[in-house]
Amino acid sequence: MSNSLSSEIEAIAKRARNASLNLCSSTTAEKNEALQAIARGLESNRRLLKEENEKDLAKAEENGLSSAMVDRLRLTHERIDGMVKGLRQLIELPDPVGTTLDSKARPNGLEINKVRVPIGVIGIIYESRPNVTIDCAGLCLKSGNASILRGGKEAKHSNLALASIISDALKASPLPDDAVQLIPTVDREALNHLLTMDQYVHCIIPRGGEGLIRFVAENSRVPVIKHYKGVCNLFVDASADLKMAEEIAVSSKCGRPGVCNAIENLIVDASIAESFLPSVAKKLQEHGCELRVDEKAADILEGFECKIATQEDFAEEFLDLRLAIKVVDSLGEAIAFINQFGSGHSESILTSNKKRAETFLNDVDASSVYWNASTRFTDGFEFGLGAEIGISTDRLHARGPMGLEELCTYKYQIIGNGQWK
Amino acid sequence: MSNSLSSEIEAIAKRARNASLNLCSSTTAEKNEALQAIARGLESNRRLLKEENEKDLAKAEENGLSSAMVDRLRLTHERIDGMVKGLRQLIELPDPVGTTLDSKARPNGLEINKVRVPIGVIGIIYESRPNVTIDCAGLCLKSGNASILRGGKEAKHSNLALASIISDALKASPLPDDAVQLIPTVDREALNHLLTMDQYVHCIIPRGGEGLIRFVAENSRVPVIKHYKGVCNLFVDASADLKMAEEIAVSSKCGRPGVCNAIENLIVDASIAESFLPSVAKKLQEHGCELRVDEKAADILEGFECKIATQEDFAEEFLDLRLAIKVVDSLGEAIAFINQFGSGHSESILTSNKKRAETFLNDVDASSVYWNASTRFTDGFEFGLGAEIGISTDRLHARGPMGLEELCTYKYQIIGNGQWK
Repeated sequence: MSNSLSSEIEAIAKRARNASLNLCSSTTAEKNEALQAIARGLESNRRLLKEENEKDLAKAEENGLSSAMVDRLRLTHERIDGMVKGLRQLIELPDPVGTTLDSKARPNGLEINKVRVPIGVIGIIYESRPNVTIDCAGLCLKSGNASILRGGKEAKHSNLALASIISDALKASPLPDDAVQLIPTVDREALNHLLTMDQYVHCIIPRGGEGLIRFVAENSRVPVIKHYKGVCNLFVDASADLKMAEEIAVSSKCGRPGVCNAIENLIVDASIAESFLPSVAKKLQEHGCELRVDEKAADILEGFECKIATQEDFAEEFLDLRLAIKVVDSLGEAIAFINQFGSGHSESILTSNKKRAETFLNDVDASSVYWNASTRFTDGFEFGLGAEIGISTDRLHARGPMGLEELCTYKYQIIGNGQWK
Repeated sequence: MSNSLSSEIEAIAKRARNASLNLCSSTTAEKNEALQAIARGLESNRRLLKEENEKDLAKAEENGLSSAMVDRLRLTHERIDGMVKGLRQLIELPDPVGTTLDSKARPNGLEINKVRVPIGVIGIIYESRPNVTIDCAGLCLKSGNASILRGGKEAKHSNLALASIISDALKASPLPDDAVQLIPTVDREALNHLLTMDQYVHCIIPRGGEGLIRFVAENSRVPVIKHYKGVCNLFVDASADLKMAEEIAVSSKCGRPGVCNAIENLIVDASIAESFLPSVAKKLQEHGCELRVDEKAADILEGFECKIATQEDFAEEFLDLRLAIKVVDSLGEAIAFINQFGSGHSESILTSNKKRAETFLNDVDASSVYWNASTRFTDGFEFGLGAEIGISTDRLHARGPMGLEELCTYKYQIIGNGQWK
């Protein structure tokens, strides 16, 4: 049984590799034609999609999934429209493939061109939201990559229906039929096999909870691009504009507390803590935000309902209306705190002092470092990438929001006239 | 025992991470000062180096290592001069850190700068040649990375002596003492621990035989950049200049058969095979090159001493005066052959037909693809990188020769004036 599953996954991986060898030279028009066909397929199969989605929803309720989870699973007309709109936006974006990134003539007459090309075969491992199937298939197609999709078991029927729409669209398009494949088996064994296929699969992107991502990172022989979590920090320096600081602190925690670029820790310079903390704490609590504070902050916030923060609190992604507060004596202490407890995602300093801002921007080790702005802007659309397949807190290949260009690598094309020594 | 080794390796990794947080903001002058100090240390410690190296050489002969292996281990005055020269060349190279790679102003007024920064902590795993210790330490320092070096047991005494010279130089320099650390234990367990330290170590670069590299790739939780082997192909198209083809075929096999960018397979279009093969085969055999040929080539080379090539031969890096020959009926067959048997390193087409050359350059999936030149040019110095830490046949992060820029990643620095939505 396990042997036949292993050969099934290997066959999928091989087909993806073969498809990728054709996809890499597909024209922009051909890729856009396929994206258009998928969009039309979604529009004309709404009933099928909703029927299949109903099966997943029924199962989810049967299994007692939380209403938040059930909501993420649901395919509404609006969400189908959202997928269609996403595909049509991809069509409008420039094709990343074929751009010459660098070009030089060597003294021996060789002309060396560094040209952007697709990575090859990309495996996407994700959890409940079925729209990820369309978003990721579209991003991989537009960037000339073959994709292997492995969705969560909660969304099995929805994903199979979406995959059959993609498959029909590919068959009617000039692109290879195997350019997008969904792994039909949702058990963990199938995933384990996929993670060993480094001869055919070139990159794995896991999207979901920290548990899934850690499992993939620890078990994959294929290179993984990921972010585990977003423990983002906001540092209010001695010379910050305190009105700006209050607006940014409250909005970047309470705006959408469940997203990875929301802040988890508010770090405040001791010299302004007394004037700043009580008023910001009041605003935060008015938004229903729970506070976990260090001893110094607790002294200042006497009379407020606060818990004392543990070391674990400072390293936790709350994903909730909860904020940890730390008072520091210096910029250096703030930077050291962030480099210890942050997850390398997004960090911000609020200050009117340019020199201190520059020290922060240079010495804080994270994908995105801000001066006088909210961490909430770490996002492919906000960065002007036009689309986003994820955010990387890794350092190799891509860091921060990843769009179409980050789904590409490069090759060197060298032109000579007979050089051999 | 294993527990204490594990804590020793973790302590080394933590110190490297802390050093990297300082190194990333070191100035070019500070880094060059440290490189200069290492160079001076090598020059003034020649006797120590040769004494310690003698211990390794004696052990190597005791253990019956081949004379080629013993030769690779040996530190001659010339080789010490080579290391010193390498460090002084690094000093002359531009600092890759701090370059703004991209900059944009967003409609909301945010200014987003993509800035080149060091990767962080790099582990280098290598085998016998002790000069790798200095080369890699120097490259990592110049690019602002902390390094953890793990050399082979054959070179243990030489590497410890080199590491103590580096350590003394760092202590006398403005850089952190732990910017370069050698793992003193050479057993496999120490390596296993290092490969799990993904919270402190950001990239592993293995250099050595395919066995070592596969071990590292299969067991590392830290991202690895590598090339397993160089199975490079040369395709002589129907419209090639046959004199050029002969020169390139002979030189790119026989010039230095043991290097990764030498060719292993000569692919010849059937239409010119009869006029080309006998004369090139004669030249190759005059250089002592053994031939392993397919059936079609065997017919044409009747009377020559050849073996029939197996499928395994076409996928093998001979590292020796041995060449496989394949006759194909079309450009498409040549490309499919290369994409199946090549290792993604370097591939070349010789042709006077521009359209066919472009098809080859686009459709062959390798780090470096050539038109009318030898594959032997895949090298950091030949590509003008000024230095080389290795060649990658991977697709993520870096592909082909890797120099100082490839030892860097980037971060986004975002400047606002209070934006929060």
